[in-house]
Amino acid sequence: MNGIDEKPLFNPELLRQIDWSVRKSSFKDGISPENPGKNLQLRPLMMDDYDQGFLNLLGQLTSVGEVTAAAFQKRFLAMKHCPNTYYVVVLEDTNKQQVIGSATLVIEQKFIHSTGCRGRIEDVVVSEDYRGQQLGKLLVETLTLLGKEVGCYKMSLECKEDNVRFYKCFGYTPDGQYFMVQRFSD
Amino acid sequence: MNGIDEKPLFNPELLRQIDWSVRKSSFKDGISPENPGKNLQLRPLMMDDYDQGFLNLLGQLTSVGEVTAAAFQKRFLAMKHCPNTYYVVVLEDTNKQQVIGSATLVIEQKFIHSTGCRGRIEDVVVSEDYRGQQLGKLLVETLTLLGKEVGCYKMSLECKEDNVRFYKCFGYTPDGQYFMVQRFSD
Ligand SMILES: CC(C)(COP(=O)(O)OP(=O)(O)OC[C@H]1O[C@@H](n2cnc3c(N)ncnc32)[C@H](O)[C@@H]1OP(=O)(O)O)[C@@H](O)C(=O)NCCC(=O)NCCS
Ligand SMILES: CC(C)(COP(=O)(O)OP(=O)(O)OC[C@H]1O[C@@H](n2cnc3c(N)ncnc32)[C@H](O)[C@@H]1OP(=O)(O)O)[C@@H](O)C(=O)NCCC(=O)NCCS
Repeated sequence: MNGIDEKPLFNPELLRQIDWSVRKSSFKDGISPENPGKNLQLRPLMMDDYDQGFLNLLGQLTSVGEVTAAAFQKRFLAMKHCPNTYYVVVLEDTNKQQVIGSATLVIEQKFIHSTGCRGRIEDVVVSEDYRGQQLGKLLVETLTLLGKEVGCYKMSLECKEDNVRFYKCFGYTPDGQYFMVQRFSD
Repeated sequence: MNGIDEKPLFNPELLRQIDWSVRKSSFKDGISPENPGKNLQLRPLMMDDYDQGFLNLLGQLTSVGEVTAAAFQKRFLAMKHCPNTYYVVVLEDTNKQQVIGSATLVIEQKFIHSTGCRGRIEDVVVSEDYRGQQLGKLLVETLTLLGKEVGCYKMSLECKEDNVRFYKCFGYTPDGQYFMVQRFSD
């Protein structure tokens, strides 16, 4: 069982509709959303990914805290109940049944730009043992094209200086705006 | 009629629950969400604000394009159907029945940070004739406190260099992250 039919966060068809031809040439070894590598599968986050190490993976990105299975499911459903908003994709190692990569596209609906939408790429992470295999690139390219597909006029992301070069590969550039933050808790 | 009961985008009670005491001292003339100034009212965006110049106001911020009443209502309802996500506040000049200020808080739900939420301040604008009356400040402070109220661990925004000083007044600072953009259309 590859889990494709088990309660995905969004319609998996959307990933199949992506026009990969435009990006194909920048990937080695024929890597694509359909074929991310041996024993790897790219798919929407599923309700049962709590048991497949999804939160452990996010722990390689930032603090996750205590999240029970019930809290995970509650959040999953809350996301799902916001139509056309949350697109969390994961890479699964189907041999180990473990989630080893993830990234999120979040859509914000606007009134400006002819009631347009903008997309944000969030929480990109590839598990340490799997880095350097074009998987981070695959996640970011997939979500960037998906953002285009669903009609965003603009995509954006914030990143540390270390990752600026990584994101430049996909057409992201600093646009001169300042990113300002205020924290209420960790 | 002050419009308070006419199909607000979110529950107006949320604005009344904000603990303004912490910010009070930084506002002159006793200005507050309850009392934004003579003939002014701070409230959620309403379904009928299309007829009160809401889109003209946004035109002072950026390109709005052609938006019919039907398109506005469709977008309004789409936002409303994403629970706990879109908080568009407006300032109305009740004499002229015109919207003269607006700002948006958008909530993004996460799995990280104990299934936390982060908030973003978007599309802040005060109509030219009404600038310099602490209204921009009122909008940003109100949404920042609302973000705290609804449980965000972090708030953020992007702005042009010209506005960095404006947002610093409210506790926002550059956190060293880079803001990267890719545009698909204008
Ligand atoms: C950033 C991250 C997702 C990259 O994943 P990855 O699968 O190792 O990356 P890829 O193998 O797809 O790398 C693609 C290309 O980017 C380059 N690259 C990877 N990380 C880079 C970085 N931080 N800076 C510059 N280039 C980088 C690679 O060298 C590769 O170049 P090539 O195609 O010319 O060989 C991964 O390092 C990670 O999870 N880091 C920790 C979490 C994190 O920082 N996330 C990003 C938050 S903004
Ligand atoms: C930015 C904007 C919302 C400010 O609205 P406003 O109602 O005139 O601002 P306020 O009267 O509340 O100003 C509050 C304080 O910020 C200061 N301020 C206002 N705009 C500022 C700016 N761009 N840079 C620095 N300080 C600024 C004021 O001097 C005032 O300081 P004070 O309290 O010490 O007197 C308004 O100028 C606007 O709509 N601009 C066009 C759209 C825009 O740029 N939006 C922001 C996108 S990031």
